[in-house]
Amino acid sequence: MHTENLYQQLAGHYLKAIDAGTLRSGDRMPSLRVMMERHGVSLSTALNACRQLEQSGHLEARPRSGYFVRSLRRSGLAPSTEPSQQLPDPAQYVGIHERVSAIIAQGQQRPVAVNLAGACGAPALYPSEALKQGVLRALRQRPDLFGHAGPSTPNGEPAFRAAMARQALVSRIKLSPDEIIVTHGCIEALNLALRAVTQPGDVVAVESPTFFGLLQILESLGLKALEIPCSPQTGISLEALELAAHTYRDIKALVVVPNLQNPLGSTMPDANKAALVAWCAARQIPLIEDDTYSALSDSEAPQAALKAWDQDGNVIHCASLHKILAPGMRLGWIAAGRWQARVEMLKYAQSRSTEVLGQIAVADYLDSGAFERHLRRLRASLRSQREQVAEAVAHYFPAGTRLNLPNGGLALWVEMPGQRSSEALFHAALKEGIRIAPGLMFSNSNRFNAYLRISCGMPYTRELEHALRRLAALVAALPEQQA
Amino acid sequence: MHTENLYQQLAGHYLKAIDAGTLRSGDRMPSLRVMMERHGVSLSTALNACRQLEQSGHLEARPRSGYFVRSLRRSGLAPSTEPSQQLPDPAQYVGIHERVSAIIAQGQQRPVAVNLAGACGAPALYPSEALKQGVLRALRQRPDLFGHAGPSTPNGEPAFRAAMARQALVSRIKLSPDEIIVTHGCIEALNLALRAVTQPGDVVAVESPTFFGLLQILESLGLKALEIPCSPQTGISLEALELAAHTYRDIKALVVVPNLQNPLGSTMPDANKAALVAWCAARQIPLIEDDTYSALSDSEAPQAALKAWDQDGNVIHCASLHKILAPGMRLGWIAAGRWQARVEMLKYAQSRSTEVLGQIAVADYLDSGAFERHLRRLRASLRSQREQVAEAVAHYFPAGTRLNLPNGGLALWVEMPGQRSSEALFHAALKEGIRIAPGLMFSNSNRFNAYLRISCGMPYTRELEHALRRLAALVAALPEQQA
Ligand SMILES: Cc1ncc(COP(=O)(O)O)c(C=O)c1O
Ligand SMILES: Cc1ncc(COP(=O)(O)O)c(C=O)c1O
Repeated sequence: MHTENLYQQLAGHYLKAIDAGTLRSGDRMPSLRVMMERHGVSLSTALNACRQLEQSGHLEARPRSGYFVRSLRRSGLAPSTEPSQQLPDPAQYVGIHERVSAIIAQGQQRPVAVNLAGACGAPALYPSEALKQGVLRALRQRPDLFGHAGPSTPNGEPAFRAAMARQALVSRIKLSPDEIIVTHGCIEALNLALRAVTQPGDVVAVESPTFFGLLQILESLGLKALEIPCSPQTGISLEALELAAHTYRDIKALVVVPNLQNPLGSTMPDANKAALVAWCAARQIPLIEDDTYSALSDSEAPQAALKAWDQDGNVIHCASLHKILAPGMRLGWIAAGRWQARVEMLKYAQSRSTEVLGQIAVADYLDSGAFERHLRRLRASLRSQREQVAEAVAHYFPAGTRLNLPNGGLALWVEMPGQRSSEALFHAALKEGIRIAPGLMFSNSNRFNAYLRISCGMPYTRELEHALRRLAALVAALPEQQA
Repeated sequence: MHTENLYQQLAGHYLKAIDAGTLRSGDRMPSLRVMMERHGVSLSTALNACRQLEQSGHLEARPRSGYFVRSLRRSGLAPSTEPSQQLPDPAQYVGIHERVSAIIAQGQQRPVAVNLAGACGAPALYPSEALKQGVLRALRQRPDLFGHAGPSTPNGEPAFRAAMARQALVSRIKLSPDEIIVTHGCIEALNLALRAVTQPGDVVAVESPTFFGLLQILESLGLKALEIPCSPQTGISLEALELAAHTYRDIKALVVVPNLQNPLGSTMPDANKAALVAWCAARQIPLIEDDTYSALSDSEAPQAALKAWDQDGNVIHCASLHKILAPGMRLGWIAAGRWQARVEMLKYAQSRSTEVLGQIAVADYLDSGAFERHLRRLRASLRSQREQVAEAVAHYFPAGTRLNLPNGGLALWVEMPGQRSSEALFHAALKEGIRIAPGLMFSNSNRFNAYLRISCGMPYTRELEHALRRLAALVAALPEQQA
C-alpha cells in the first residue's frame, strides 16, 4: 500500500494556494529550482508535483517558460439556480418507484460503454486487498464462524460497533457502541427509522431534489413525500420548511442528507444544522439523518453530523460504509435515539442480525489506521475526477449550463440551459452507450427535468472525456423549451 | 471431509430394520460373524456398526451374549394431545414481541451452561471448513468483489440462484433461477411476502403453535394473527381453517410451515398439502410457505413443498440455508409467484441486493456435491440426538408426559402432565443454568403453557443428559393445575 508521497504533499500545498486564490489563473508557478530550494526537495519531487497538477488540470506547461496556473473554464460556469419556494402537493405522490425502475431497467437493457449514472466510485478506488485480508483474518480467528447463528451481541459485533462509534466521533457524535445497531446498509437503516416513527399514509418531509432510493422507500411504506426546496449550496431551506409546517400540520418525520447531499452535493452550514435540529426538537418532528457521504468531504475540518447537536434523542442517525469503504458489502448502522428499542425490535423482526463476517473483517481494518489513509486517497482521486468532469462540462456543454462544484462526493448536478429535457437526453445518450441519471429520478414532481446527475466516480480517461463530449453534443441538439 | 463409511451404511441398514419393526425390542442382533458373512464386511466394520447403534441408544451389549435391540422407553410415551378446534380471537393479538423478547432477554441475563432453547444445530454440525474454502475461492476468482456494488443480476448472483433452483427440485418445485430473489434469511423473505399481500390491520392466519419469529413479524407489521389449530402429526387442521374462514371472512394471507413445523415437528401429508393449496387458490388467499426445515427430514423420499402443487402463482415460497448449511450466513430466498414484481420492488426498497460473497462461496459448495453428503451426516446426527433426548425425556420426566418424535428437525415439543406451567419451569431451569423455550412463546394465546420446546441440536453428552435429568426433576416439582 502506497502512503502519501512527498510530491503529493507538495502538489497539495500548491493546490491549496490555487484554491485560496493566492495563485491565480495565468500566474506563473515558481521554477523547479525555486521549488527545490524553498521546500528542500529533489528535482524529481518538484517535477512530479507539477506533473500531477498538470494532469489534474490545474497547471499547464508552456514550452521553455515553465508551468502556469490554467484558466479553469469551470470558473466561468454560473452556479445552479436557487429553487422556487413553491411546495409540491404530497398527495400527488404516487408512482415514483415505477418511474425510477423503468429508467433503471431501460438503462440495463442496452450495453453501456460509459456509465455516468451511478453514485459509486470505481472498484479500484476501494481497498479490496485489505478487505480480503480482513476476511481471511476473521476466518482464521473464528474458524467456525459460519456455524454460529448471529453475532456475539444482538445488534452486531462488538468490535465493529466500537469502531463505528469511534468513527462517529469524527462527525462530532458521541455514542456508546451499545447505541449502534448494525444494518444491511443505509437503506435498511432508513427503512427502520421510517417504520419506527410513521404509519402508512403519513406525510414525510424530504429534500427536493433527493436520492431516488429514499422516494422508493417512502412509496413502498405507503408514505407521502413532501418535497422541501433545497439550495444547491446550503441544502434544505429552513424557510421553506417553516412554510411547509404551516401548510401541512402533520409532518411525521423529516429526512435530510446534511453533508454532500445526493444529488445536489450541498453541505449545510453548521448554523443551519443547529437550527434544523432545534426546530425539529421544538416541534417533536423526528429528524432522520442520512450520513452516507460525509467522509467524502474535502474540507479541512470534517463535517459535523446533525446528530452532533441532538440533545433529546430526536435525531435518528443512519450511516453506511457503502460509498466510502466497500460497495460490495452491505454494512450500515443506525443510532435511533428515542426510538432505539423500537428500531431494535423492527430490525430483529425484519431481518435478524446482520451477518458477522464482514463486520469482523472491517473492524480490524478500521483499527489498523489504514482506513484513514484510504479515505485520503479516495478523496484526492474523487476531487481530481470531479474537477476534470466539471472542466469538461464547462468546455463542451452549451453556454448557459449551470453547475455547482461540490466540496466532495461522487457526482455533479448539472442544469442544462433552455429547459432541455433530461428524459430525452437519457434516451438519446443510451443509444450511444452512455448512461446518465436524469433529473426526474430525484423528485416526484417534474421540476428537475432540466437537470442531470453525472458520476465522478471513474478515472478521467480519454474514453470518459470522449463520452462527455458526445453528451454535450446531444444536449446542444435537444430542443429548448419555454420555461 | 469424511464421506459415509461402510460401517455407517451397515448401521443404517439395521436401523431401518428396527424402525420397520423387523427387529423388535429385546431381539438379538445377528452375531458379528453372521454379519460379516451376510454383508461381506470385515470384523471391524461389523463391530463399528454395532457400536454406533449402541451409542445412539438402539442396541445394548450384554456380556458374553452379543448385541440386543434395546427396549426404547420413548415408545411408552403417549403422543401429544390433538388440539381443540376453538379459535382464539385475532383481535386479542398484542404484545407478543414484548413477551418473547422479555423471555429471550431474561434467558441472556444469566450464565447458561446448557442451552435447550435454540432451534439450531451445534456449530460442529456445519461444514465450516468447506464454507471457508468457498469464501477463499470466491475472493480469488473476483479479487475486487468488495469494490463492486451489488450482484451481477439485481435479485442475486446467477450461480447461487441457479443452485437454489436445482435444490428446489428436490422439493418438487420447478423454478427458473429468474424467479428466485435472494434475501437476508427466511425472516426477510417472510417480511417481504407479508408486506406484498397485506396492509396494516389485516388478519393473517397462522399455525398454532407457531414459530415466535413469525408472530413478531406480524406484530411489527401491524397485522393480526388468527391462530389455526394444528395436529402434532399432520400439521395445520384443514377443518379448523375452513371454520376460521367462515368466522373471519377477510383472511388476507395464510402462513404455513408444511414440513417439520416449528415447534411441533409435524409434516403435512401430501394429500393435505394438495388440498390446502387448492383451498387457498379457490379463495384467492395468498399462501405463504416457510420451507426452512424440509431438508432435515429423515424420510426416504424428500418432502414436497406446497409450491409443488401451485398452479397459478398463489403460493409464495420462502426458504433459507440457515438451519441446513450455515447458521452464520444470512442467506435465504423467495419465489413470490404472482407477487414477484412487487416483492422485487419491496426487496430493493427495503435493503437492496443481498451481499455477494456468501452467495458465490456457497454456490460453489452446492455444485460440488459435498452438500448432499453434508446433509446426510447432519440428518443422521440430528436423528441420533433427537432419539436420545426423547429417550431421556421418557426416562426422567414424570409419568403422563407426552411427545411426538418428529421425522426430522432440530427440536422436540414436550407436553407436561397436569397442566404444569412452562413459564414457571423456564425460570426454575434458568436458575440452574438451563435454558428452555417455554410454550407461551409459540402462541399469542396462553394455551401452550403446559408445553416446552427442547433443542436436539447438540451432541448428546453427559452434561446434556444431566441437564435433562435436572429439568425432569424441576418439572416433577412444579405444582399441577386444574385443566
Ligand atoms: C443519500 C443516500 N443514502 C443511501 C444510499 C445507499 O446506501 P447503502 O448502500 O448503504 O444502503 C445512497 C446511495 O445510493 C445515497 O445516495
Ligand atoms: C419456521 C422458521 N422460519 C424461519 C426461521 C429463521 O430463518 P432465517 O434464519 O433464515 O431468517 C426459523 C428459525 O429460527 C424458523 O423456525
